[in-house]
Amino acid sequence: MTPVLDLAGIFVFALSGALEGVRKRLDVVGMVVLAFFTAVGGGVMRDLFIGVPPAAFRDLGYLLVPIAATVIAFFWHPQVERAMPGVLVFDAAGLGLFCAVGTTKALQFGLAPLHAVLLGVCTAVGGGVIRDVLSGGMPTLLYDRQLYALPALLGATAMAVLYTAGVRGFVATLSSAVLAFTFRILAMRYGWRAPLARGIRGSV
Amino acid sequence: MTPVLDLAGIFVFALSGALEGVRKRLDVVGMVVLAFFTAVGGGVMRDLFIGVPPAAFRDLGYLLVPIAATVIAFFWHPQVERAMPGVLVFDAAGLGLFCAVGTTKALQFGLAPLHAVLLGVCTAVGGGVIRDVLSGGMPTLLYDRQLYALPALLGATAMAVLYTAGVRGFVATLSSAVLAFTFRILAMRYGWRAPLARGIRGSV
Amino acid sequence: MTPVLDLAGIFVFALSGALEGVRKRLDVVGMVVLAFFTAVGGGVMRDLFIGVPPAAFRDLGYLLVPIAATVIAFFWHPQVERAMPGVLVFDAAGLGLFCAVGTTKALQFGLAPLHAVLLGVCTAVGGGVIRDVLSGGMPTLLYDRQLYALPALLGATAMAVLYTAGVRGFVATLSSAVLAFTFRILAMRYGWRAPLARGIRGSV
Repeated sequence: MTPVLDLAGIFVFALSGALEGVRKRLDVVGMVVLAFFTAVGGGVMRDLFIGVPPAAFRDLGYLLVPIAATVIAFFWHPQVERAMPGVLVFDAAGLGLFCAVGTTKALQFGLAPLHAVLLGVCTAVGGGVIRDVLSGGMPTLLYDRQLYALPALLGATAMAVLYTAGVRGFVATLSSAVLAFTFRILAMRYGWRAPLARGIRGSV
Repeated sequence: MTPVLDLAGIFVFALSGALEGVRKRLDVVGMVVLAFFTAVGGGVMRDLFIGVPPAAFRDLGYLLVPIAATVIAFFWHPQVERAMPGVLVFDAAGLGLFCAVGTTKALQFGLAPLHAVLLGVCTAVGGGVIRDVLSGGMPTLLYDRQLYALPALLGATAMAVLYTAGVRGFVATLSSAVLAFTFRILAMRYGWRAPLARGIRGSV
Repeated sequence: MTPVLDLAGIFVFALSGALEGVRKRLDVVGMVVLAFFTAVGGGVMRDLFIGVPPAAFRDLGYLLVPIAATVIAFFWHPQVERAMPGVLVFDAAGLGLFCAVGTTKALQFGLAPLHAVLLGVCTAVGGGVIRDVLSGGMPTLLYDRQLYALPALLGATAMAVLYTAGVRGFVATLSSAVLAFTFRILAMRYGWRAPLARGIRGSV
């Protein structure tokens, strides 16, 4: 079974997908599709890129948690929207957790540290990219200049360094996740932005 | 070789992809890309998610039938458009067939019934989702409120129940396919709609 | 390690992705994501469709070259844009090389010649399709009527014919690549267009 922490990350990401469905006035099918792929899409991409069968289609939790998140969003989306600042904190926690877990899995399957870092970031941000593509727009990750991929990159790098140095297991995962989480929270708090190419003025 | 019924489903889905290409004034390359991925995209996703090489790239029929559908749409699209109500009936047949076949394949590779149902639905509706994403818009599946995924869900569930109960082979596949087909036809006939989240008014 | 020619193709495609990011005013994260997937997306799709772990996540060059291309586009995009006609020649070279290399890899893994040709074309054009989908629009491949997929089809077919006839290795790859490259350059020079379905007038 999936660990509780992992399911918590799945739940928060699924909730953000289902809420996006409500905002776009999708029906319940659209909501559950967005919830599912937002939650597990990053991990599915990671597994396909590693070359192993995606875990999301082998584990019951990965299926039931997005359904539960959809039910909650279906009936109580106004309440959840009001709690959104709180949800963003959970989302940052999911981001941290997923980049650490994704990097570890790639390293365990023998990928080089640099590729493992790439797949860790992919695990953390891939679901949101799929959510945005399915919602019919450019992924916010590419243009909104919020620091989202960069905290994941920091956490994944920390995880790869620790793992390569022989520090593995719960402590390494948690440290890396906390590092990414903290960076993400600080970036939101202080409005840090990713740079644009030289001479380009932002459109947002 | 692919069974005749399977190829019939491929053909109908490929035709709907090629016609979408004509409507969007795509060139012949765009038409054949849409025809191919509409027809085999769901099965390719299923195979990737199961973790086996996609059958669509191993079987000649999966390649030649979309090309034939593109040729037909290229020269006779006005006639095919006029026959569209009839084509929708074939599309419903393809939907029924694909959800049953997809579920069976997932079960044969040892996936749990719930995941097999998910992959059966994915087989049936995935090609249309890819067609819509490549056409540059949100997948109609997510918002148009027609009952399309739900009939596939019914058929896939029936297939999984029958398979688990030991009823396999042609009879089980056909019964499940007919169930999904009938539900889909009734939904079209009576205009049944999928529900929106509580308090949300439809935009369509 | 990846051969030098292959890395040159990766570099040109990555540059086109990073420049697309600059044009759309994406931040540095968006630029590197577009650069990476434009460069390796076609090969990743080919490998997934063959059923092997994508080489792009196993080889350091596939990761570092897109990063280098992003750095160049970040600081010197005006100069690179001015050199674009020259870049298009390199892009044509990448197209030729990728269709030949992709077809060969598929044949080496035992796919039938027709499917190998399909995967060769996919290798050559897939990255651009992913770049356009991530940029939030319909892939230009589908509608812009430039001969882009058809030169790749010619080169992939030549490669499959040579390979099946026993002519393999550097000479076969280079001949097929040059064939596709020449067709592409002629098509650009003389403005050849792909046909639209009968009776359809172009929107572009």
